[in-house]
Amino acid sequence: MKNFAFYNPVKILFGKGQIANIAAEIPADAKILITYGGGSIKANGVYDQVKSALAGRNVFEFGGIEPNPHLETLLKAVELIRKEGIDFLLAVGGGSVVDGTKFIAAAVFFEGDPWDILAKNAPVTAALPFGAVLTLPATGSEMNDGSVVTKWETKDKLFFASSQVFPRFSVLDPETTYSLPPRQIGNGIVDAYTHVMEQYLTYPANAPLQDRMAESILKTLIEEGPKTLANPQDYDARANLVWSATMALNGLIGAGVPQDWTTHMIGHELTALHGLDHAQTLAVVLPSTLTIRRDRKWQKLLQYAERVWGIVDGDQEQRVNDAIAKTRNFFESVGVRTRLSDYGVGLDSIPAIIKNLEKHGMTALGEYEDVNPQVVEQILALCA
Amino acid sequence: MKNFAFYNPVKILFGKGQIANIAAEIPADAKILITYGGGSIKANGVYDQVKSALAGRNVFEFGGIEPNPHLETLLKAVELIRKEGIDFLLAVGGGSVVDGTKFIAAAVFFEGDPWDILAKNAPVTAALPFGAVLTLPATGSEMNDGSVVTKWETKDKLFFASSQVFPRFSVLDPETTYSLPPRQIGNGIVDAYTHVMEQYLTYPANAPLQDRMAESILKTLIEEGPKTLANPQDYDARANLVWSATMALNGLIGAGVPQDWTTHMIGHELTALHGLDHAQTLAVVLPSTLTIRRDRKWQKLLQYAERVWGIVDGDQEQRVNDAIAKTRNFFESVGVRTRLSDYGVGLDSIPAIIKNLEKHGMTALGEYEDVNPQVVEQILALCA
Repeated sequence: MKNFAFYNPVKILFGKGQIANIAAEIPADAKILITYGGGSIKANGVYDQVKSALAGRNVFEFGGIEPNPHLETLLKAVELIRKEGIDFLLAVGGGSVVDGTKFIAAAVFFEGDPWDILAKNAPVTAALPFGAVLTLPATGSEMNDGSVVTKWETKDKLFFASSQVFPRFSVLDPETTYSLPPRQIGNGIVDAYTHVMEQYLTYPANAPLQDRMAESILKTLIEEGPKTLANPQDYDARANLVWSATMALNGLIGAGVPQDWTTHMIGHELTALHGLDHAQTLAVVLPSTLTIRRDRKWQKLLQYAERVWGIVDGDQEQRVNDAIAKTRNFFESVGVRTRLSDYGVGLDSIPAIIKNLEKHGMTALGEYEDVNPQVVEQILALCA
Repeated sequence: MKNFAFYNPVKILFGKGQIANIAAEIPADAKILITYGGGSIKANGVYDQVKSALAGRNVFEFGGIEPNPHLETLLKAVELIRKEGIDFLLAVGGGSVVDGTKFIAAAVFFEGDPWDILAKNAPVTAALPFGAVLTLPATGSEMNDGSVVTKWETKDKLFFASSQVFPRFSVLDPETTYSLPPRQIGNGIVDAYTHVMEQYLTYPANAPLQDRMAESILKTLIEEGPKTLANPQDYDARANLVWSATMALNGLIGAGVPQDWTTHMIGHELTALHGLDHAQTLAVVLPSTLTIRRDRKWQKLLQYAERVWGIVDGDQEQRVNDAIAKTRNFFESVGVRTRLSDYGVGLDSIPAIIKNLEKHGMTALGEYEDVNPQVVEQILALCA
């Protein structure tokens, strides 16, 4: 096992009706800004629950945060906060709203151009406190300190992390996710699944507990994902998806083990350049990454085949192939297509993707830091 | 899944050499009190590492905290803290030192008799901040907010919990545990294993991720426990035991599921009255609890048999029996005896144990709160 530091102070309020408890988590005299997305929270009752929980409080609103939140939009919230003297944020929505709110929280106190937090890894030394009411199980942002923001003007989709931007609390009420369309549930399943794979499918590090916990999440997603798609109002199935997505990226399964993240880095460029949903890019890239990197990941692929998919027959080659095929089939089975051609993206797009990765310094990806532009080209060629 | 709140802000510093990093976790101007036990930290080099990490800091010491820490001893530390104006504690030792330090931290600010925190569930509204350097993998106290203290005068061993007494940080360096005698390693394995069983072996709650995570810890303990006993300086085996023991009781596997704790409550009285090690009481009581409560735990016993022990042959009755027998054999195999007679305790001791449980209000134990004194008597009779 590798040395590690683990720290995650996010308070989770999980279950039916938990929105009613948020007032106790926010200072009584706070000037609160509710941040949200396209307005679905007004259609599905979540907005009303939040307003009711915060009755009598000093509440402002900022809507319109996009999927893959735009720097340009988020900076408008920063202006509003400074103008009104707001001192607590409440993100109500999915991972994009939570990610965007993390950036807003950090940008408020940042001196200089806040885009430097992502473009130049400028350190975040302070941030506004905030909580989250999560309405889409997928990104894990509700229980970690990472955030992905897109500069729309230049199509740069970049990541930052800082212990300053852990949510103070996150409400996870599975019922608030009942109204999500199947596409978003399928995306959430693929996103959570891939988060686990990035931290698990590398090389053996003699960390059996982390391995088994990762496999636990994968097996639960395989079991509960289809159930919750088939019956969106099955409370337990949805609750298990929600908790799995959170556990997939709260730092625990990645503690003390090598991590990959090749698929995510390539995926970010695909979203920035071609507008695919984040999870769609992962469903396309992950099977190809596993295939091209099979020699480097051999032992873990065999373990994955046996423990997650129960594949024990055939020679090693065959088991590895089967495991990758089953991964692809699972993504397809939850409604997320796994070929670039499914999204109208041709192989002629590869040079621009690689150029963007180079621009962002992503030229030595993966658990061995040896996924260079040539390897990325091979991976993308296989995504056709 | 049940509703739950999860909150655990303990920062974990895991791995070789991490003691060197504690200075950065403690305010520079703090008056620090190092709390410890019988002095083994002076023999095994941990004390020197801590002193070296805190060179130039204002450091006081308080040694002599016993296994099953005594109220009477801990109150002397409280006196010292008040006299010297100490404002940060550093527990260096095993679970008893950490538990004792939690009580000290809470007692310093408590108005009235601090024993009321345990005897009367008096609320803890403030506590001194503290960190921990863990030298014995077992109790999980290094990453939770619970503590068990014994009032020696009256032989009362009681529990309290408060979010005020989470450690600010805990150092888990597996190398600091190399010098532990086999008895303490065996005890640690049994303690961690039983912590998992108390949160897992109840009734199905449709929480498959929590189940699988619990099974992950059990399987890792079964696999790595004997390895680390056979070769105490196998770094990875010891690291896996240490991390498993911490994960067994940091709140995660118990979130959203029913919990039992019958075995622990009976065990506490056995330690208080007869001086058995904590883990010895668990090794004695758990197999009997599972046997007497088999009907109430039937479904989970079958799941445990299959997933943890690979028992799939035979009828249900046989599988349940096998799983309980394997549990007992595992405890014996790591050197912890599982019969009251192994410790010279006869069945004539049962009435006093039950009387003590009644005195402490423990008359409706277990996940159904139906383990009354009559059921406890049956369990203890089977422990002979």
